[in-house]
Amino acid sequence: MYQRPDTPLLDTVSTPADLRRLPEKDLRQLADELRAEMIDAVSVTGGHLGAGLGVVELTLALHYVFDTPKDRLIWDVGHQCYPHKILTGRRDRIRTLRQGDGLSGFTKRTESEYDPFGAAHSSTSISAGLGMAVARDLDGGSNNIISVIGDGAMSAGMAYEAMNNAGGQHSRMIVILNDNDMSIAPPVGAMSAYLARLVSGRAYLSLRDAAKQLAKVLPRQLQQKAARAEEYARGFWTGGTLFEELGFYYVGPVDGHNLDHLLPVLKNVRDTHQGPVLIHAVTRKGKGYEPAENSADKYHGVAKFDVVTGKQAKPKANAPSYTRVFAQSLIQEAERDEKIVGITAAMPDGTGLDLFGEAFPKRIFDVGIAEQHAVTFSAGLATEGYKPFCAIYSTFLQRGYDQVVHDVAIQSLPVRFPIDRAGLVGADGPTHAGSFDTAYLACLPGFVVMAAGDEAELRHMVATAAAYDEGPLSFRYPRGEGIGIELPQRGEVLEIGRGRILREGTKVALLSFGGRLRECLAAADELDAAGLSTTVADARFAKPLDEALILRLAREHEVLVLVEEGSVGGFASHVLQLLATRGVLDAGLKVRPLCLPDTFIEHDKPERMYAQAGLDAEGIMKTVFQALGQDAAAGIRRA
Amino acid sequence: MYQRPDTPLLDTVSTPADLRRLPEKDLRQLADELRAEMIDAVSVTGGHLGAGLGVVELTLALHYVFDTPKDRLIWDVGHQCYPHKILTGRRDRIRTLRQGDGLSGFTKRTESEYDPFGAAHSSTSISAGLGMAVARDLDGGSNNIISVIGDGAMSAGMAYEAMNNAGGQHSRMIVILNDNDMSIAPPVGAMSAYLARLVSGRAYLSLRDAAKQLAKVLPRQLQQKAARAEEYARGFWTGGTLFEELGFYYVGPVDGHNLDHLLPVLKNVRDTHQGPVLIHAVTRKGKGYEPAENSADKYHGVAKFDVVTGKQAKPKANAPSYTRVFAQSLIQEAERDEKIVGITAAMPDGTGLDLFGEAFPKRIFDVGIAEQHAVTFSAGLATEGYKPFCAIYSTFLQRGYDQVVHDVAIQSLPVRFPIDRAGLVGADGPTHAGSFDTAYLACLPGFVVMAAGDEAELRHMVATAAAYDEGPLSFRYPRGEGIGIELPQRGEVLEIGRGRILREGTKVALLSFGGRLRECLAAADELDAAGLSTTVADARFAKPLDEALILRLAREHEVLVLVEEGSVGGFASHVLQLLATRGVLDAGLKVRPLCLPDTFIEHDKPERMYAQAGLDAEGIMKTVFQALGQDAAAGIRRA
Repeated sequence: MYQRPDTPLLDTVSTPADLRRLPEKDLRQLADELRAEMIDAVSVTGGHLGAGLGVVELTLALHYVFDTPKDRLIWDVGHQCYPHKILTGRRDRIRTLRQGDGLSGFTKRTESEYDPFGAAHSSTSISAGLGMAVARDLDGGSNNIISVIGDGAMSAGMAYEAMNNAGGQHSRMIVILNDNDMSIAPPVGAMSAYLARLVSGRAYLSLRDAAKQLAKVLPRQLQQKAARAEEYARGFWTGGTLFEELGFYYVGPVDGHNLDHLLPVLKNVRDTHQGPVLIHAVTRKGKGYEPAENSADKYHGVAKFDVVTGKQAKPKANAPSYTRVFAQSLIQEAERDEKIVGITAAMPDGTGLDLFGEAFPKRIFDVGIAEQHAVTFSAGLATEGYKPFCAIYSTFLQRGYDQVVHDVAIQSLPVRFPIDRAGLVGADGPTHAGSFDTAYLACLPGFVVMAAGDEAELRHMVATAAAYDEGPLSFRYPRGEGIGIELPQRGEVLEIGRGRILREGTKVALLSFGGRLRECLAAADELDAAGLSTTVADARFAKPLDEALILRLAREHEVLVLVEEGSVGGFASHVLQLLATRGVLDAGLKVRPLCLPDTFIEHDKPERMYAQAGLDAEGIMKTVFQALGQDAAAGIRRA
Repeated sequence: MYQRPDTPLLDTVSTPADLRRLPEKDLRQLADELRAEMIDAVSVTGGHLGAGLGVVELTLALHYVFDTPKDRLIWDVGHQCYPHKILTGRRDRIRTLRQGDGLSGFTKRTESEYDPFGAAHSSTSISAGLGMAVARDLDGGSNNIISVIGDGAMSAGMAYEAMNNAGGQHSRMIVILNDNDMSIAPPVGAMSAYLARLVSGRAYLSLRDAAKQLAKVLPRQLQQKAARAEEYARGFWTGGTLFEELGFYYVGPVDGHNLDHLLPVLKNVRDTHQGPVLIHAVTRKGKGYEPAENSADKYHGVAKFDVVTGKQAKPKANAPSYTRVFAQSLIQEAERDEKIVGITAAMPDGTGLDLFGEAFPKRIFDVGIAEQHAVTFSAGLATEGYKPFCAIYSTFLQRGYDQVVHDVAIQSLPVRFPIDRAGLVGADGPTHAGSFDTAYLACLPGFVVMAAGDEAELRHMVATAAAYDEGPLSFRYPRGEGIGIELPQRGEVLEIGRGRILREGTKVALLSFGGRLRECLAAADELDAAGLSTTVADARFAKPLDEALILRLAREHEVLVLVEEGSVGGFASHVLQLLATRGVLDAGLKVRPLCLPDTFIEHDKPERMYAQAGLDAEGIMKTVFQALGQDAAAGIRRA
């Protein structure tokens, strides 16, 4: 029987202040205990494992050398923050990670003063850090700002924008490039190749070399101690030219697992009162846990697992995931249409485009964490007659919004946007919720905006997207498994702007847009049983609306409930706009829009989040009873 | 009396094919004629002058060397495309630039086959070009793709994302970096400094040096012709390391006004069948027109002007612009609150923050064309207790949308977003319309979303934004002059979520959100005169809504018209959501939402665009009459 790891030293450390009281020689053991504790914790919660394992030593070293929380330590993306959480007063709750009411899987300002900035989307840390550094300068303060960013996150334009600004401003801040040659998927792009060249074939920076590199920016006294003058003669290789051209002092590469090197380098940089510094630390994702090190994805995100064997306890699925249905349907279409190409922004696995890429290796393009570019690159492909499927999660498509508007919609280019992770997503919480895409896309003239009511509908929508070449189009679908409905052999091309009626009633109409369709059907059963004859329709399209269907539902029912997995401003808003403009509301209609509530819903199991949002069958029923002036509780009990 | 310039050679050129039939020796004269023609055209239309003047030779050389439109020539931002338009069959319409029904001020796919990609926002050209290059590779084609991008546009992350991807993919494309050390405002950032270092203190690339640089990537035969082997020995300086590290061959710097250098360099690059190439061409914005060259902004955007004197015919304003009222109000607040800081993404003039910067030079931050970074940098400042006013036009804030959601809204950080250019903007057309911000911001939990009904309200909203520190807040205001209302000495802090009633009536209520308030008042006069007693209210807030006010208007009037300068999904959608959820529509209400229509409205004078949109007084009246079942035309005639 596996026991919790023995962690005598870690047990004495509940805050970084405790840590800083330890002698340096104890840190190696502490690192080992911290790693064991983290592995054990994630084995019971699931979550992001590989990233945290890669930064155990770095986390310790940073809190040891810097005076957190006064010194600001910002973890980019936050995937790698579990060791940080264990060291900053949250060890007692570490086995609640990503559970309802438990710790967030990311850094979070409301959770700890040691989290000065919440990060769950990539590549924000340098911008945030620069803001803090500038604030410090305005205040006349002297604290340190440290942003830790992965090599994958460096492919995002946002990181470059921040570097460009920081290098130009010359504000004092420290960027630690955590280079594990691996974000979620294998690295792509020229920056990644550049970093590999910096590291490859060279020994890590020795202490002596680090001192020499730093001496260039250190006060004279340290310079003299650090190295003799002749050593600065020309020919001394520094590396990192690209970063230096952007105005950063480059230090590295440093072995990110060697505390004997990390600690003095960090101390030296801390004591340097100059402009921005970039420390290039090389780490291994999954470090120190053999199953993770040996796995292709380095246990980026894992289910609960057995610590000894590394075997993950993935629950058996009852139905294929929407992601897989999307991928298989796209492959079907692409077999018949060679103009179909797939674009992903560093998420081939998550989007299912990895499968598409296996089938059509020349027709998939992973552009890196670069949603802005992904969208306009797709637009460029579309101008030449290709049919790009630009597959980006709802929450990440926010990164490419201007490009969707300016490069795709205004030019009416037929770029297809498959939008996975629509609606609430569970353990990843509010930063990853797909709440706003219908609002921000359906307002764009000429866009076709769809949502899949089930996995068979998704298959039809992929076929529809492949066939429709008149302009931009999106289709959204939830995270996770489908509802288990039988899949058609091949998708049918849907008529644009045409919904469907699933069951006919006379008093109440439930009009669903997207994945709440099943809840609408369940609610209809109960409502029928309670004597309220209920129609259920699947709108399929938020744009263009099926006006005939909607006007008929409004005309023939006393109550019309609109149900969607998104914020206000989306599907229901378009329906209300139609009803008001057409004068349908003049004579009265009990119309009730059910959207996500006006709050960021914390991470939990999706079904509990939807219940909280009032978007489950019970919430729908309650709305109907209230609209009819009936006591909801009584109605539901009766049903 | 000034005459149209004499252009005997240009008169023989109506397409690039004509151009390519000329001997090279004629091109210098043609360039002079083209420049004169362009100056003359813009003197009667107004528009972007400096950028086009800087690329006259480059435009000629590109069309001369490359086989446009089969070779794809993409102008970034499009400010500089007027010479290109003159040479590509649009000379006969060049004096309709930016006028209603005239040529667009930007490149536009529907306008010409020589415009393979429309561009009006910055930094999209490399992404679009790479898409075209990849499509060509998939097709097995061999045409050239040329993206011309300015040095200012290089500060945007999107350009970096595209370079990173292009360098990694090694697809053959040509990027021409048009380095005039000047976008709209003086350059900022490390990249700009880097480019200056590449250029400064060095002669332009000689033909011989260019041959040597290119020889590295040319077939062997050319190599031998170009330079002897020993010249490749180490020590040969190439420059452009940063671009080379990103996977581009760097050629330059080249004098962008010297046709004798440009033509052979372009020909060599055209004949090079290798991966991506970057040509660094140095130009002068405003080149060849003395008033432009001597002006600080190089005549970036001009009104009609006198060609001989350069004097612009700026119409006398009747009221201060909203931009100026914003700036002066912010300065007032900042005098009393030292935590107020201003952030602009390369638009100090356009946003009015230049005035703020003159008053508080240490409290303004121009981060470059980098909206993503601007937003999160502001968020970082807010975490440290500062009060950032992140002033970005409505259309450009789309670039920072994910950062608004993820870094500001989810963390509930008090970043203030003054949103200039809300609604339709006139000559810049659909790419610059501020149509969607209310839709994409008001859907975010916790956001305070305001719009100014007039310039006095704007002053109050600046004061309100300075005082409100609980979370994110935006306030939008139109382009152009205020309505001439008296300005209060100082802004009052508005109660959050409280609107105001301007005139009371009994039958019709007009509820305005933003700059259409004046049209509502005008419509109310007419409606009153027609016997329809009309209330006019200014909502001020789309979020939180003034629920009491709205419910009262709904209860006490037969018709309720909602008026806003934005798309569906915005203010009216939030009001309809409230009315439906509260059951106010159950008994019937003639509610009519008036938003921007579901189409991208082409450039024209703003008042004509709004008339087309039905958002002027006449459109409002028509809506009221139709809601009442009266003949609108009759009603308006009667009024």
